[in-house]
Amino acid sequence: MTLVNQQIQLASRPQGEPGADNFRLVELPVPALADGQVLVKNHYLSLDPYMRGRMNDGKSYAQPQPLDTVMIGGTVGEVVDSRHPGFVPGDKVVGMGGWQLYTVVDAAQPGLLRKVDTTHVPLSAYLGAVGMPGVTAWYGLTQIIAPKAGETVVVSAASGAVGSAVGQLAKARGCRVVGIAGGADKCGYVVDELGFDACVDYKAQPDAQALLAALQTAAPAGVDGYFENVGGAILDAVMAQMNAFGRIAFCGMISGYNGEPIPMRAPQLILTQRLKLQGFIVSEHMQLWPEALKELGTAVATGRLKYRESVAQGLAAAPEAFLGLLKGRNFGKQLVRLA
Amino acid sequence: MTLVNQQIQLASRPQGEPGADNFRLVELPVPALADGQVLVKNHYLSLDPYMRGRMNDGKSYAQPQPLDTVMIGGTVGEVVDSRHPGFVPGDKVVGMGGWQLYTVVDAAQPGLLRKVDTTHVPLSAYLGAVGMPGVTAWYGLTQIIAPKAGETVVVSAASGAVGSAVGQLAKARGCRVVGIAGGADKCGYVVDELGFDACVDYKAQPDAQALLAALQTAAPAGVDGYFENVGGAILDAVMAQMNAFGRIAFCGMISGYNGEPIPMRAPQLILTQRLKLQGFIVSEHMQLWPEALKELGTAVATGRLKYRESVAQGLAAAPEAFLGLLKGRNFGKQLVRLA
Repeated sequence: MTLVNQQIQLASRPQGEPGADNFRLVELPVPALADGQVLVKNHYLSLDPYMRGRMNDGKSYAQPQPLDTVMIGGTVGEVVDSRHPGFVPGDKVVGMGGWQLYTVVDAAQPGLLRKVDTTHVPLSAYLGAVGMPGVTAWYGLTQIIAPKAGETVVVSAASGAVGSAVGQLAKARGCRVVGIAGGADKCGYVVDELGFDACVDYKAQPDAQALLAALQTAAPAGVDGYFENVGGAILDAVMAQMNAFGRIAFCGMISGYNGEPIPMRAPQLILTQRLKLQGFIVSEHMQLWPEALKELGTAVATGRLKYRESVAQGLAAAPEAFLGLLKGRNFGKQLVRLA
Repeated sequence: MTLVNQQIQLASRPQGEPGADNFRLVELPVPALADGQVLVKNHYLSLDPYMRGRMNDGKSYAQPQPLDTVMIGGTVGEVVDSRHPGFVPGDKVVGMGGWQLYTVVDAAQPGLLRKVDTTHVPLSAYLGAVGMPGVTAWYGLTQIIAPKAGETVVVSAASGAVGSAVGQLAKARGCRVVGIAGGADKCGYVVDELGFDACVDYKAQPDAQALLAALQTAAPAGVDGYFENVGGAILDAVMAQMNAFGRIAFCGMISGYNGEPIPMRAPQLILTQRLKLQGFIVSEHMQLWPEALKELGTAVATGRLKYRESVAQGLAAAPEAFLGLLKGRNFGKQLVRLA
């Protein structure tokens, strides 16, 4: 019996804001396994803002996603067939399986497929708090912001997969933690459920002055570390409230992903406040992943690191869920359930 | 006999561009020395861009210059009277004597007055290449840019006191060095006399596109380190040419000193190129001055670190010389000869 795979390909590159017509769902047979290969049935697909950058053709930090091939993306699933001695059917695995139901993985290549233990950590968490988003939070916080106890750390997109981990990791280090999120629901969640000290609802601020005033109320001692996920007016407001020797980790600038200009209003603050601004891509720091995953896995297993998931049902729902993610419609880690 | 001092005070704070009317020349007697005090006759006054920031009242990295008091500034001179055992008449000294002919220094306070050796280094150089500007160049280059041999380092205001030292220190470390300066004279100087590999004359570029094209020609392998003295359109151009993992040391942003908006056009480059941008003030890193001054002093004494001075004659010429410095009319380190 030949298994039928379904996958979503990039059909065209977006001009500005992407739409559903940039994607195409196709069916194709699952090929027979060659020696050293493993067949994985994907259970969850991860949707992440970085995918928007890969849809463009221009110079970016990520290689462009090739047209007419399966969209690249992180997945967790279960081995259903194996011609590699390290994997047997039933193994739970995490990898870059792409937007598709089945993935054939060349398991001999190091790093492509990793077995995970789901005794204390749910499988889907390996795409979130104990996966790339969690390590992203850990890296930016510990390696760039490097906060001391008592300092104030601000994070934007605070209820998201990365932001929620940043805040909780900073709280565990004795910091005052302020989130920035869109809407009273998200703000209530990060304060009441995740334990942030305060949250600024940017959608409730009529203008830049109100945004700054709200931030000043939430961070009255100024901001020592800022984890940047969005850019634009929010970056300007946080910079205006930075203390001397503050650090800003640039993880994402989702407000500019469609090519809109997002100038930084007052770069002279870098000088007058002696700030350090640093961009990073977590996949370039693989040597630190084991240390990060150890802290994150333990924290999730013991209930000290909480997270929320938005789960879309079925592969066909992935494009709309992804477009919603870019508009902030998700609440927590955006996943697609495939099986 | 009572000595008569002359000093220049800040008479008013500028609204936008400063003018000569913001300053006032006054005469007053030199007071008698108390125990522990030293009387210094100032030979040279240093004029530096940071003084513009201090003329404002607003939040800045520097304390505002108080109104109706002598303008603060670095000086070199000679001890003419002393009631401190560590100093005798004839000693050559460097300190913050201000815009005046004579200064009474409380020499018991550590760090206010330092004896210097003029055997191999001219007295005035202690205000430039072997003084605060030289240490500024050294700090930003070695502690923030930290260039490797073979990398490309760019510096703006390249013919100035700081920029000329940045470039020569980077050349000594095996870098390709590109200056940015205003005018063919300054560009010719940094290439022909200081040994820079190339120089972009920003005044010869009709627009931002031409500026970027000229920079791409001068730095064809991209830019790994940038020492920022000016900000604005020049910063935008250099950022567009930065390589992955590039470092930018923010030392000055003279283009915004009068309150003009100087937005950064594309801060998303911080993320996509994984840049590090860091501001600094050299006076906050006094523990590194001895190491820096040792390298700088040796390099000047042996002729490996060259510099040029613009010398205005007499205290009364200081305000106009300072206003010219802010417009880039000086060529090399701007001094005022007082004696």
